[in-house]
Amino acid sequence: MLVVMHKQASAEDIDRVVAEVKRMNLTPHPMPGALRTAIGITGNTGAVDPRRLEVLPGVLELIRVTKPYKLASREMHLDDTYVKLPQTTIGPGTFTVIAGPCSVESEEMILRTAEFLMARGVRLMRAGAFKPRTSPYSFQGMGLAGLKILDRARERTGIGIVTELLDTENADAVEEVADIIQIGARNMQNFSLLKRVGKARKPVLLKRGMAATLEEWLMSAEYVMAGGNYNVVLCERGVRTFSDHSRNTLDLSVVPPVKKLSHLPIVVDPSHGTGKRDYVPPMALAAMAAGADGLLIEIHPEPDRALSDGAQSLDFTAFERLLGQLRALAKPLERTMN
Amino acid sequence: MLVVMHKQASAEDIDRVVAEVKRMNLTPHPMPGALRTAIGITGNTGAVDPRRLEVLPGVLELIRVTKPYKLASREMHLDDTYVKLPQTTIGPGTFTVIAGPCSVESEEMILRTAEFLMARGVRLMRAGAFKPRTSPYSFQGMGLAGLKILDRARERTGIGIVTELLDTENADAVEEVADIIQIGARNMQNFSLLKRVGKARKPVLLKRGMAATLEEWLMSAEYVMAGGNYNVVLCERGVRTFSDHSRNTLDLSVVPPVKKLSHLPIVVDPSHGTGKRDYVPPMALAAMAAGADGLLIEIHPEPDRALSDGAQSLDFTAFERLLGQLRALAKPLERTMN
Amino acid sequence: MLVVMHKQASAEDIDRVVAEVKRMNLTPHPMPGALRTAIGITGNTGAVDPRRLEVLPGVLELIRVTKPYKLASREMHLDDTYVKLPQTTIGPGTFTVIAGPCSVESEEMILRTAEFLMARGVRLMRAGAFKPRTSPYSFQGMGLAGLKILDRARERTGIGIVTELLDTENADAVEEVADIIQIGARNMQNFSLLKRVGKARKPVLLKRGMAATLEEWLMSAEYVMAGGNYNVVLCERGVRTFSDHSRNTLDLSVVPPVKKLSHLPIVVDPSHGTGKRDYVPPMALAAMAAGADGLLIEIHPEPDRALSDGAQSLDFTAFERLLGQLRALAKPLERTMN
Amino acid sequence: MLVVMHKQASAEDIDRVVAEVKRMNLTPHPMPGALRTAIGITGNTGAVDPRRLEVLPGVLELIRVTKPYKLASREMHLDDTYVKLPQTTIGPGTFTVIAGPCSVESEEMILRTAEFLMARGVRLMRAGAFKPRTSPYSFQGMGLAGLKILDRARERTGIGIVTELLDTENADAVEEVADIIQIGARNMQNFSLLKRVGKARKPVLLKRGMAATLEEWLMSAEYVMAGGNYNVVLCERGVRTFSDHSRNTLDLSVVPPVKKLSHLPIVVDPSHGTGKRDYVPPMALAAMAAGADGLLIEIHPEPDRALSDGAQSLDFTAFERLLGQLRALAKPLERTMN
Repeated sequence: MLVVMHKQASAEDIDRVVAEVKRMNLTPHPMPGALRTAIGITGNTGAVDPRRLEVLPGVLELIRVTKPYKLASREMHLDDTYVKLPQTTIGPGTFTVIAGPCSVESEEMILRTAEFLMARGVRLMRAGAFKPRTSPYSFQGMGLAGLKILDRARERTGIGIVTELLDTENADAVEEVADIIQIGARNMQNFSLLKRVGKARKPVLLKRGMAATLEEWLMSAEYVMAGGNYNVVLCERGVRTFSDHSRNTLDLSVVPPVKKLSHLPIVVDPSHGTGKRDYVPPMALAAMAAGADGLLIEIHPEPDRALSDGAQSLDFTAFERLLGQLRALAKPLERTMN
Repeated sequence: MLVVMHKQASAEDIDRVVAEVKRMNLTPHPMPGALRTAIGITGNTGAVDPRRLEVLPGVLELIRVTKPYKLASREMHLDDTYVKLPQTTIGPGTFTVIAGPCSVESEEMILRTAEFLMARGVRLMRAGAFKPRTSPYSFQGMGLAGLKILDRARERTGIGIVTELLDTENADAVEEVADIIQIGARNMQNFSLLKRVGKARKPVLLKRGMAATLEEWLMSAEYVMAGGNYNVVLCERGVRTFSDHSRNTLDLSVVPPVKKLSHLPIVVDPSHGTGKRDYVPPMALAAMAAGADGLLIEIHPEPDRALSDGAQSLDFTAFERLLGQLRALAKPLERTMN
Repeated sequence: MLVVMHKQASAEDIDRVVAEVKRMNLTPHPMPGALRTAIGITGNTGAVDPRRLEVLPGVLELIRVTKPYKLASREMHLDDTYVKLPQTTIGPGTFTVIAGPCSVESEEMILRTAEFLMARGVRLMRAGAFKPRTSPYSFQGMGLAGLKILDRARERTGIGIVTELLDTENADAVEEVADIIQIGARNMQNFSLLKRVGKARKPVLLKRGMAATLEEWLMSAEYVMAGGNYNVVLCERGVRTFSDHSRNTLDLSVVPPVKKLSHLPIVVDPSHGTGKRDYVPPMALAAMAAGADGLLIEIHPEPDRALSDGAQSLDFTAFERLLGQLRALAKPLERTMN
Repeated sequence: MLVVMHKQASAEDIDRVVAEVKRMNLTPHPMPGALRTAIGITGNTGAVDPRRLEVLPGVLELIRVTKPYKLASREMHLDDTYVKLPQTTIGPGTFTVIAGPCSVESEEMILRTAEFLMARGVRLMRAGAFKPRTSPYSFQGMGLAGLKILDRARERTGIGIVTELLDTENADAVEEVADIIQIGARNMQNFSLLKRVGKARKPVLLKRGMAATLEEWLMSAEYVMAGGNYNVVLCERGVRTFSDHSRNTLDLSVVPPVKKLSHLPIVVDPSHGTGKRDYVPPMALAAMAAGADGLLIEIHPEPDRALSDGAQSLDFTAFERLLGQLRALAKPLERTMN
């Protein structure tokens, strides 16, 4: 950390900062300059509130240097993390497509989707039994009955299940059925939930919050990892900005910095990112080109009859076309589809 | 709802939209114009996904008309809501200051703060026993022990308690102690939690999420009210924007539209809104002038030693000065301080 | 346009709106519904301020239907626009790379860059003689001397010149030298400048403003086209959001809606979009995959000695590597590099 | 400036940074720590591109310390600036209301407005002869004829004129008539225009750009001041965010940091900030409470017939009511209305 003093700061002001730093059990390093003094701080600064120094007299600014995440950081863990599942492995060099309906609507449609996916080489199906909905009057998912349907789909077809957990009440039930437990954007900073899945025996797919910085996102991954669960897959799904031509602003340019700062794999959800099915295929291709390790995509046997998010779901024909395009791009991008 | 067709849309395109609207159990009203056709839709549109129509051939745009919130809407409930507490009442014409430390740190500091507040006529104290922290390595609050301290503070001083609930596990304990249950910004769309406090016998202070539109915020209030708990106080605490001179961008201009669209009272939290104690008093005065019904403010006996958020906490002297300024403004603004 | 009335709106309120619409020389179409009345409006609504109706008593909301841009709209002009230059053509099916240094620094470096590009099949070079700089103390470009250098570079190598125009004073000089006149993000709504280049005989590359919606961007293109210059190339270069891991947030998901709503070609600038050279190649590939018609990329013979924007410039070796990757992607994406 | 190295950075990486810093004619100060090395940099860093260092091998991050603005900075100029006009003075302790129509529509309405304002003690009138409009098809202002009308209004009533300058072509004409030259939000980074008004003999009212940080805004003020014109009044008018309940998000919390970092006066424009006349009075009062030095407000004799921005204009009755409220607040806020 670095404390930058005002040009007019007095010697007392500087001494006060030095004393406060010591009181925080940290080491101050005053560096007088031509114009002003700066004070470097070393020690374990993770646990302190840096803004405490910012309001002392004579302080112009406080600058944090050390990243607060450790387990999620590439500095601490140079090698890429590969998340291993019974059905496949997610990580650099591969490209994993996770597809399926927004929500479980019936056993028939889930089975039909699972069989369709397995026949095309897609090994992971997404589908929500519990749905976070903006309105209390909207369809909230089939709940436990939906989980049972997903369980049967895996049993019959062998497909891996990615499904969302909304609260700790249903954690055991979801953990039982899911191959990957999905934490939604609205719960990215639901810390009680993050602690719970930090104890889970299944990998976690952690969506980025709508207003989350990269640092906050990695800190949420850190919550999961601090609980002992190192199998975290990040998922970019669009952030909220002034831009109104798409449902959210899909921040594909977060992919390269994620790869630089962290060792965790990252997938992209162009369905929520754009909110319109016509825009999903180009953004899916762009995600692969940007370096993502996979996709989370909404498909539906009959999108226009979907109970939720139909407008952003691809039908099977459009999805097959996209799969073909992804396969054609995988080779020049040196990726293996799985 | 209004479906706007392309200039080039064919008669078949229009028929297809009309049929789909009927299939959704709604009534279509085609309106041919000189340039293009628009199709009005009437019926209960709350339960359908409007984007389903948006992707049909020939559709240019889909425009929603009806607001999805009902119980929180002023259209359904013309009169202002007053939230009545044992200690005071929150609503238009009054101005309620809620003050206290970010977190419960010890019985001594809580008692000292409660006595200080009661002596100055402040009837509600905020303090967190459970703290949502970005980092898993930061102080997470005293938990149940903190709740007990708050309970004793009320017993001894008579002050009302506003304290945050983070998860359903601790809902009974918090409901027992709190006079107002606070739902934090990060949990504004934690729907399981909203449903739980919808069943609580205590009023709910619902903070606006960092990236929440006014409509989403009112929909979250609707979740609480749909559960039967009509005592909701909204709290603006800053939204996330590109602007980096303050911790968040305090959106004071949300106050007049809240008053127009809803009957619920609204308070403002300038401490989180600005993140810097120097900026808190001017924004507190501005909140009153903008029409807010009260404030949520962080104060601390010794801000520079606070375990969390010290930099945005006022000390007692600065808070007393602010109280005096608020009282001086209350008269010309036709508000009664309580 | 559609005026939505309050549930409680009186018959007088509705009559007042109807009268005001007529006073605006438009036609009102009242549509009584079960809950409320809506009033459709037809006629040429482009010239009126819709908000005038919004503040009448009983009005809940005013909804605009017709897009205000015409010449830039695909509805008015179904076929894609191809911008034809002496050196190449920009438009769908092709992929045009425009590369070069941020600013003209010397004749030697410009010639070296132009020769390098022509030898690799790149036919357009970007380089600024006039530089918009945030600080008045930063290098402001070589000005007219820089333009002469660019002119000589074209003469000797045949390369096309893309260079920025900052103000009407230098319009004649820039129009003389440029093959494409660049309008920067900060000038996207400098309407005097837009009107001037609407009279130019050279195509215009119009960068999106940092906070511009797609509609505002197309309206700025409309300014140029309304002056008679139909050769407009749009350029996405990142928008400003809360997200701080990159210099700007490159909004690649604007590409599909641009293609849907407009017939104009669009290129992407990943150099300004990301601000860091390491992130440029993945985002350049992603731009092609998302459907862009080309790239605007900063390269420099010695990026670490550049007078401006060195940190986001590729050196020649990195650029050649990227060109190879783009060529490998062009085939599966059915694009011809030019 | 501070260069933070990676934990794994080699001695060669550090030497390379040190050498590059020297090549930039700056002085490096390496500070080895337990975990990593940081390198402090002193010297005149204003003219260099810091990102040049950011891309060297082994560099984790580059942190800028010195503010790039000087003339606008309170560090360089401790005393508040008062902008003196023939009619009044703008600066702390006073509160200056500037009111008038969006655009000059006729001599009659301008005279009527000027007389109304002077009779109520308002000494400055705003009105645009040149209007920046998003659409090329909207009313663009009366131009030079409008300026003549403003000139006559001042002659007859003595009122001071605040009017917008859009381009250098009309600079002489506007400078002749205006008492304060207004630079609009869209031109905040039109550097040619800023340089021109830096040479003007009249004060400049500089609106904040829709996506401008405080630092960029002060840098634009610096452009004007670097030209020799120290009479700059800042004007907050709302920034662009995801929040859609108002036309823009009025960032009142910028007022305290402006006061801390700069000595320049600041006024607030709640008309553009909110875009709806109902919301203007509460935000005007809030601006005064937040510490602003004045207001820029749109009023119109007949708002519903205004040629531009009628929906955000107050009529004379509403404005008088607001003036009364402002006067009532001025006393407890220790401000003198002028």
